[in-house]
Amino acid sequence: MLQKNGDPYLYETSLKLFTRAAAVIPEGIYGHQNPAFVIPGASPYFADYAEGGHFWDVDGNEYIDFLCGYGPVILGHNHPEVENAVNRQMAKGSCFNHPGKLMVMLAEKLTSMIAMADWAIFAKNGSDVTTWAIRVAREYTGRKKIVMAKGAYHGAHSWCTAYPGGVLPEEKNNILTMNWNQIDTLERLAAIHRGKIAGLILTPYHHPTYTAQEMAANGFWEKVREICDRENILLILDDIRACFRLDVHGSHEVFGIKPDLICFAKAMANGHPISTAVGLNKYREAAEAVFFAGTFWFSPVPMAAALTTLNILETTDAISEMNRLGTRLKNGLEELGKQYDYRITVSGPPALPYMTFDDDPDLYHIQVFCREMISRGVFLHPHHNWFICAAHTDADIDHTLEAADDVFRIVQQELDA
Amino acid sequence: MLQKNGDPYLYETSLKLFTRAAAVIPEGIYGHQNPAFVIPGASPYFADYAEGGHFWDVDGNEYIDFLCGYGPVILGHNHPEVENAVNRQMAKGSCFNHPGKLMVMLAEKLTSMIAMADWAIFAKNGSDVTTWAIRVAREYTGRKKIVMAKGAYHGAHSWCTAYPGGVLPEEKNNILTMNWNQIDTLERLAAIHRGKIAGLILTPYHHPTYTAQEMAANGFWEKVREICDRENILLILDDIRACFRLDVHGSHEVFGIKPDLICFAKAMANGHPISTAVGLNKYREAAEAVFFAGTFWFSPVPMAAALTTLNILETTDAISEMNRLGTRLKNGLEELGKQYDYRITVSGPPALPYMTFDDDPDLYHIQVFCREMISRGVFLHPHHNWFICAAHTDADIDHTLEAADDVFRIVQQELDA
Repeated sequence: MLQKNGDPYLYETSLKLFTRAAAVIPEGIYGHQNPAFVIPGASPYFADYAEGGHFWDVDGNEYIDFLCGYGPVILGHNHPEVENAVNRQMAKGSCFNHPGKLMVMLAEKLTSMIAMADWAIFAKNGSDVTTWAIRVAREYTGRKKIVMAKGAYHGAHSWCTAYPGGVLPEEKNNILTMNWNQIDTLERLAAIHRGKIAGLILTPYHHPTYTAQEMAANGFWEKVREICDRENILLILDDIRACFRLDVHGSHEVFGIKPDLICFAKAMANGHPISTAVGLNKYREAAEAVFFAGTFWFSPVPMAAALTTLNILETTDAISEMNRLGTRLKNGLEELGKQYDYRITVSGPPALPYMTFDDDPDLYHIQVFCREMISRGVFLHPHHNWFICAAHTDADIDHTLEAADDVFRIVQQELDA
Repeated sequence: MLQKNGDPYLYETSLKLFTRAAAVIPEGIYGHQNPAFVIPGASPYFADYAEGGHFWDVDGNEYIDFLCGYGPVILGHNHPEVENAVNRQMAKGSCFNHPGKLMVMLAEKLTSMIAMADWAIFAKNGSDVTTWAIRVAREYTGRKKIVMAKGAYHGAHSWCTAYPGGVLPEEKNNILTMNWNQIDTLERLAAIHRGKIAGLILTPYHHPTYTAQEMAANGFWEKVREICDRENILLILDDIRACFRLDVHGSHEVFGIKPDLICFAKAMANGHPISTAVGLNKYREAAEAVFFAGTFWFSPVPMAAALTTLNILETTDAISEMNRLGTRLKNGLEELGKQYDYRITVSGPPALPYMTFDDDPDLYHIQVFCREMISRGVFLHPHHNWFICAAHTDADIDHTLEAADDVFRIVQQELDA
C-alpha cells in the first residue's frame, strides 16, 4: 500500500545494511547508485523487489518507481512476456562457446527497425559501446580527437568520466569539449583542429545531472551534420539514456538527427543486461578492425528479452502511453508549482522528465521536494532525470500529484516561510 | 547421442546462419567467438542448448563441452541449485535503482573466503575490473606506468589489447611488457622506470593463446613480491580465467602469490554475468576515488548465482573432481601421443588443460586434431586452453580418449604419412 497521510517512511533496515556494506565494499555503494547522489539518510539504500511500475525497499516501503533502474525498465518490472522469453532461453542455457540464433535475429530486427542501421554489434555496458564507437571513428579516419559536450555522461571510462581519480592526462588530451547547443564552438574546434577530429559524440538532447535538460535548438542537428560532412567527422549518437523510449526507430527519428553510429543500451531488454551499437556500411571495415570481446556478451538470455521488448514496443501503444503519462505529470507539476508561487521547470521529453526549481542554487528545494515525495511513496531523484514506464498508470500520476500538493507546501514551510 | 564411429558432423545450419549473421553483424561473429579463431568451416558456429557438461549446436550435433563458455560454466550448464537461486531472484526483479541485500552478502562471502580480501567491488566484464584495477594503482601511487606480460590477455581495452585497431599510441605509452617468468626483465624495468611504475598485472600462470601454458618458475612469485614491496608497485593478480577452478580461496593460494588486488570473473556465477575485484584495506581510499559505475552491475540475479556457486564449490568435491578428471585427460592424451610417436605437451593446471604438439610451427597438427575431435563430439579448442567442469564424467573422459585414439591416427595419416 502506498503511503498517503501516514507516518513518514523509515529506512532503518537500509541503514543497517549499509553499515555492513561499508565494511566490505568501497563507499558501501558506489557509482551512480551511491546514496550520496540521492538524499543520504532520507531515502532507501537497498531494494527488495519490484512489480510493474512499483518497487519495495528492504524496509517494506512501497514506491512508484520513477527511476526504473536508471532507465532499463521500460515495460515495467517482471513483464510476463519478457520474463517468459527469458525463462524459455534460460532453460536451454545462458552461457555458450558460440552465439545462438537469437543474436542473428536481434541484429536483423535492429537493422530492419532502425533505418540507418546496416549492422549491429552487442556488448554489456553502455561504456563498452561508446568507447568502441570512438575507437571505430579513430580507426576509420586515422585521426585522434573526439568532441563531446560538457556535462554529458558517456560512461565511466577514463576518456569521458568527469571524475579525475586514476585518470591520466594523456587519456583526456584528445578529448575536446563544447557546450550543448553551441554550434559556434563546434565550428571553432573544427577550424582549429582541422583534419584531426575523428568523431563527435552527442546525446539526442542534453541530459546532465543537477541541472535542467535541454533540447537541441532549431537547426542544431542540420548544422552538426553539415560540419561533420564537410570535415569528415563521424557523428556518434549516444542514445543509451533515451534508447527506445521516445521512438522504437531510435531517438534520432524524433529529432531529425542523421548519425553515422548509434549506441543503445538501458531499456532495450527491459532491464536485462545488453548494449548495442549500430552503424552504416561505410564503417563496417573499421568496425571489424577494432577488436571487441567480452565473456558474457553473446548470452542469448538478454537477447531473448530484447527481441520481446522491441516487439512489444513496436506493436503496442507503450511509447505513446509513456508520453501521455509523462505529459500529465509535467503539466500537473507545473500547475502545482504556480499555485505555490514557485517557478519550476519540467524539462526533457515527457517520458524522461526532470523537474528543477528555477531559483535553487544550492539544490535545497529539489532535495527537500524529493525527500518528501520519496517518503510518500513516490521515488523521484533530485539530481538525475526520471523515467516513466509503460506499467505506470493514471492512478500513479494521481497519487504523485496529490503527494506533490502536500510537498510543495512543506518545501515552502521549510525553506521559504 | 555422442557420435562414435558414424558420419562426421555436418555444420550446414551453422553455415547458413553465419551467412545471415555476416550480413548484419561486423565479421558475422566477432571477438574471441569469431569462427576464424577455431576452425572455420569445420566446427559449429552457433549453439542451441546445453545441459551439464554437454552442449548441442544448431545442427543438432552433441558435444562434450571442454570450453565451458570460455570458462564461466564450472558446475555444468543449467545447474539446478544455481538456476533455482536465479529464478527465485528474477521473480523479485532483476533491475533496480538500488543494490539488494545479496550484494552485501556476496561481498561478505568473498571477503571471508579470500584471506587477503578486505573489500570487494562488482562489475560485469573482466575488462571492467582489470582496467579499474590499474586506475586504482595509478591513483594510489600517483604514477603512470603499468607492467604486463607479453601475450597475456587482460581484456579488450586499448591499454592491453594485442590488436592495433582504433588504439592510439598514447594509450600504450605507459604500458611496459616483460616475458613471463623473466624476473630479470622486471628488475630491469623497475630500475629504468624507478618511481614511475604504478602496478604490475599478471595472471597466476601464463595462459596465452596458440602456445603452451607456462607455470611460474620456483621463486618467481617471491621475487615479484619482493620487487613490488621494494619499489612500491601494486601487484594486481588477474585471476579471471582460472577464477575459483583451482581453489575456492583463489588461485593465489595454490601458487603462494601475495597480491594487492585480485580480479575475478568467468566462473564465479556459473555463467551468469558478473566480475569482481577484491583488495587490501590500504587501497580502499584509492578505490573510492576511482569512479566505477555500470547500469546493470548491481543486478541481484548474477549475485544470487555467485553466492550459490561459491557455496557449492566450498562444500562439495567439485574442485578436486575437476582436477582428477583433468589429470585423467592429461595422462590419457600424453599416453596416446607416445603411442603414435608424437611429442605432445598438456600444459597448465589439469582443470584448465591445453594440448600442443611440440613440433607444430604452423599449428596444422593441433588444428587437424581438434577438427576431428569436434567432429566426434568432443569440443576442443585448437588455440585456447580448455576447461573441465564439475558436470563432466569419467564416461566423458573415456569417450574423449577413445576418440583421440582414432584422431591421432588420422593426424598421422593426413600430415605425417
